[in-house]
Amino acid sequence: MKIAVVGAGLVGSAWAIVFARAGHDVAVYDAVEGGADRAIGLIGDRLKTLEEVGLIEDAAAAGQRVRVAASLADAVVDAAYIQESVFETVEQKRQIFAALDAVVGPETLIGSSSSGIPASAFTDHVGCRERCLIAHPVNPPYLIPVVELVPAPWTAAATVQRVRALMESVGQEPVELTREIEGFALNRLQGLLLAEAWKLVADGIMSVEDVDRTVSAGLGLRWSFMGPFETIDLNAPGGVADYARRFRTMYETIAGSRGVDLGWDDALIAEVERQRRVALPADRLAERSAWRDRRLMALMAHKRSSQDPAAG
Amino acid sequence: MKIAVVGAGLVGSAWAIVFARAGHDVAVYDAVEGGADRAIGLIGDRLKTLEEVGLIEDAAAAGQRVRVAASLADAVVDAAYIQESVFETVEQKRQIFAALDAVVGPETLIGSSSSGIPASAFTDHVGCRERCLIAHPVNPPYLIPVVELVPAPWTAAATVQRVRALMESVGQEPVELTREIEGFALNRLQGLLLAEAWKLVADGIMSVEDVDRTVSAGLGLRWSFMGPFETIDLNAPGGVADYARRFRTMYETIAGSRGVDLGWDDALIAEVERQRRVALPADRLAERSAWRDRRLMALMAHKRSSQDPAAG
Repeated sequence: MKIAVVGAGLVGSAWAIVFARAGHDVAVYDAVEGGADRAIGLIGDRLKTLEEVGLIEDAAAAGQRVRVAASLADAVVDAAYIQESVFETVEQKRQIFAALDAVVGPETLIGSSSSGIPASAFTDHVGCRERCLIAHPVNPPYLIPVVELVPAPWTAAATVQRVRALMESVGQEPVELTREIEGFALNRLQGLLLAEAWKLVADGIMSVEDVDRTVSAGLGLRWSFMGPFETIDLNAPGGVADYARRFRTMYETIAGSRGVDLGWDDALIAEVERQRRVALPADRLAERSAWRDRRLMALMAHKRSSQDPAAG
Repeated sequence: MKIAVVGAGLVGSAWAIVFARAGHDVAVYDAVEGGADRAIGLIGDRLKTLEEVGLIEDAAAAGQRVRVAASLADAVVDAAYIQESVFETVEQKRQIFAALDAVVGPETLIGSSSSGIPASAFTDHVGCRERCLIAHPVNPPYLIPVVELVPAPWTAAATVQRVRALMESVGQEPVELTREIEGFALNRLQGLLLAEAWKLVADGIMSVEDVDRTVSAGLGLRWSFMGPFETIDLNAPGGVADYARRFRTMYETIAGSRGVDLGWDDALIAEVERQRRVALPADRLAERSAWRDRRLMALMAHKRSSQDPAAG
């Protein structure tokens, strides 16, 4: 498959690694003179490092699949997918999407790496807008697999489905938002936790260092292999609905103390329970808890064996 | 050192493992007939599993250090530290602390595993209250090292210092709150993230499964070895203050949409920056970023090698 990477800074270069690693041919374009050439060097170095730590088998072969495009049109010709990663201002996004619209093929899909600006702000004016969406990575995407897919109001459902399938096929872990929302999902989840972290420091309750340790030696361990819903699903004998009813009052007080209306009413609890029971039937909760403990043990053994020099 | 574990359910049993693993003699007491004996069996099984996965060297020797106490007085005689883990109601906590007060030695410190009830609610009436505090674990503490230390208003500073030193000496990672607050720190941080997770589902923005993946394939990876402050400190060229100024508007909008006043004013940003620069001087940000990438690579290699059967 032919992939175009448009905008060859840190994010674009990292995307090139994702696609080349998966066996695709990647054309890299950057409007800045020499930008794509510099990216090729960076990509080669990072591929080598990935090979050294055993995360890819053949860095040289992957590097061979990445080429510098002579022009934007050259980059996107015959491309099945374009990953746009230009500098994040509305104006620059609007310009590049207009330029892409002039040269893009009739079937090509376009994902933007935008971390905050929604696609509706810069694809309203282009003919190919049904084939555009946000594909927001966490940097660097060749190490952190999640990709947020966020459609504009005019993005076709098929566009989301096909980009999801593409991302899965190259080893990423796509997640879908049904519509645009400020900060998408990942930065919203991070944002509310950060808000509380900063308030604990502002109120003199806890030091920055101890807040960090509360996460890195506590909350973050389970969250590195299962999400917050599965975590609480396994933390009460009857699963997530049982957990929500046991701890609703505590969480209402916590959330309320910062102005948040928790809203865990019975209908919402039933809906979360329904979705979790599709993923994991109630009669497998105990088995999954044992799996969680094995994963935690393996993670702790891994952390013990990893180099962890003091930060200071 | 002699340690007493009072209340021998899942939490108390797990604490016994922590102390016995570190070489201490542990006396286990449970008010329920046969409760401590059942705990000994559970402790032996778990120690064996820890030995199998290489997390301890000699399960049998550790198991030998745990004994059933004949009475509460027998459990705490000569104990340097008592970890209380009885059922979490104010009434039961008040009763056990009154009973402990009657038999505790003059130097013994007492930590309560309470996950939500503050120590001021159940130690106001006891003579030894200066030596009492919350030592809240995440279950199971032999796998998740963080311990929240929360003093009551009358807890002596020396009590906090000595329990912190004890917890560090047995391999836990204690964090300190300067005063009581609803939910302490860990459940507050989890609670605000959970509040947002549930709202994304309630608003039909994202499925439970995709929220979980946003964390387990995204946010949770870095958080398993560094906290939220260090994460953002390394996510802008100029460190955490640079990050806060770049993204303050986005996070204000996110937090504000849920009713939270973010409050990242210049004075607070300066204070967080000051604390981070003590931990990591500015001229070492780049080196630490390279460390983060190596840790991420090692984590991804670890995850790839771990068994991860589908949940459903």
